[in-house]
Amino acid sequence: MRDGDRYGQGFVLWFTGLSGAGKTTIAEIVERDLRARFGKIEVLDGDIVRTNLSKGLTFSREDRNTNVLRIGFVANLLSRNGVGVVVSAISPYKEARDEVRRDIGEGFIEVFVDAPLEVCAERDVKGLYKKAFSGEIKGFTGVSDPYEPPAAPELHIKTNEEEPHESAARVITHLEERGYLWPVEQYREEYDRA
Amino acid sequence: MRDGDRYGQGFVLWFTGLSGAGKTTIAEIVERDLRARFGKIEVLDGDIVRTNLSKGLTFSREDRNTNVLRIGFVANLLSRNGVGVVVSAISPYKEARDEVRRDIGEGFIEVFVDAPLEVCAERDVKGLYKKAFSGEIKGFTGVSDPYEPPAAPELHIKTNEEEPHESAARVITHLEERGYLWPVEQYREEYDRA
Repeated sequence: MRDGDRYGQGFVLWFTGLSGAGKTTIAEIVERDLRARFGKIEVLDGDIVRTNLSKGLTFSREDRNTNVLRIGFVANLLSRNGVGVVVSAISPYKEARDEVRRDIGEGFIEVFVDAPLEVCAERDVKGLYKKAFSGEIKGFTGVSDPYEPPAAPELHIKTNEEEPHESAARVITHLEERGYLWPVEQYREEYDRA
Repeated sequence: MRDGDRYGQGFVLWFTGLSGAGKTTIAEIVERDLRARFGKIEVLDGDIVRTNLSKGLTFSREDRNTNVLRIGFVANLLSRNGVGVVVSAISPYKEARDEVRRDIGEGFIEVFVDAPLEVCAERDVKGLYKKAFSGEIKGFTGVSDPYEPPAAPELHIKTNEEEPHESAARVITHLEERGYLWPVEQYREEYDRA
C-alpha cells in the first residue's frame, strides 16, 4: 500500500476550492492530527498570506496567480527543509497551481475540496455569496470569476457527500500511504515490541 | 565563552548595509562554511526576494519596509523550523529591521556590513553609483535616499579594514559562541575520542 518511506520529509497539502467548500474546516482537523504525529507543521492560509506576503494585490487573474506563486515559493522553502505545510487558498487557476506543482515536485499534494456552487452559496459562512450575487462584490470566484477545477488532484473531496472528519481522515490516510506519516498501527507495533 | 547550546536551532543572519559594502561577498563565504557544518541552510538575497515575493514594490520608504517585513516573515517561518537563514538586503530603515527582530526573537543576528560611502562608490561593482550620482537612478540608498545604521547590531563589520574571509570568520565565531554551531575543535575532540 505504501509507496516508500518518506517519514521526516516535508510535503505540501494544497487545499484548493471555492469559498465555502470547506477548505479551512478540513485543513484545521488535518492540522490538529498532524501536530500530534509530525514534528514540524506550518499553516499558510489565504488570509495570513494576504497580510504578510501579498498586500496590495488585486483579484485580477494575474494578481491571483502571483499570490498563489508566492505561497508556493514559501511552501517550497519550508517543505524542502522537512516541514509539513498546509495551504488553504482558493487558487482558482490551473496554470499557477501547476507551476507550484512543478517547483515543489513529489511533495506537492493537491486536495480538491469540492462542493456544488449552490451548496457553498447556501452555507455562505462569511456572507460573501450574498454580496457577490447582488453585485456588491465583483470578481467573486464561482459567481463572477472562474474556478478551474484540478484535472488530476491527488485527492478529490466532495464535502456535500461526507463529514469533515471523514474527509480529514482520507487526507491523513493518503499521507500514510505515500510514506510521509507512519501508520498508527506501526507506532503500536513498535510500542508493543518495546 | 558560549552562552548556551543551541545546536540544531534555526537562526537568521541578517546582513544589512549599503550597496557595495560587501554583504553578498561575505554572505557567500559564510554560506559555504555553514553548508559544511549545519544541515539546513537557505539564502534569501535581495534579488531572489524581489522576484518571488516583492515584484511590483517601489523603492519608497513604505515599500522598502514592506519588502524587509516579507523577507522577515519567511525567515521567521524557516528559522523556527530549524533552518539557518542567510539574508542579504540593504534594509535601510531601522523600524522595519527592528520589527523583524521582535518577530524572530533571539535567533535574529543583525550583521552591519559597513564601509564609507566613498569606498562603496569607488568599488561600484554594479555600476549603480555612477548612475545614482548622475541622477539617472533616483532614490538610491546612501546617495539620494537615507540609510539608517543599526544602533546595536550583533556584529559590526568594517569591510575597508579587513578581508572578506576575516569578516566571514567573525560571523562563524559568533554563531559558535552563541551555541548555534559546535566549534570545530569540539568535532575534533569527539572524533579523537571515538
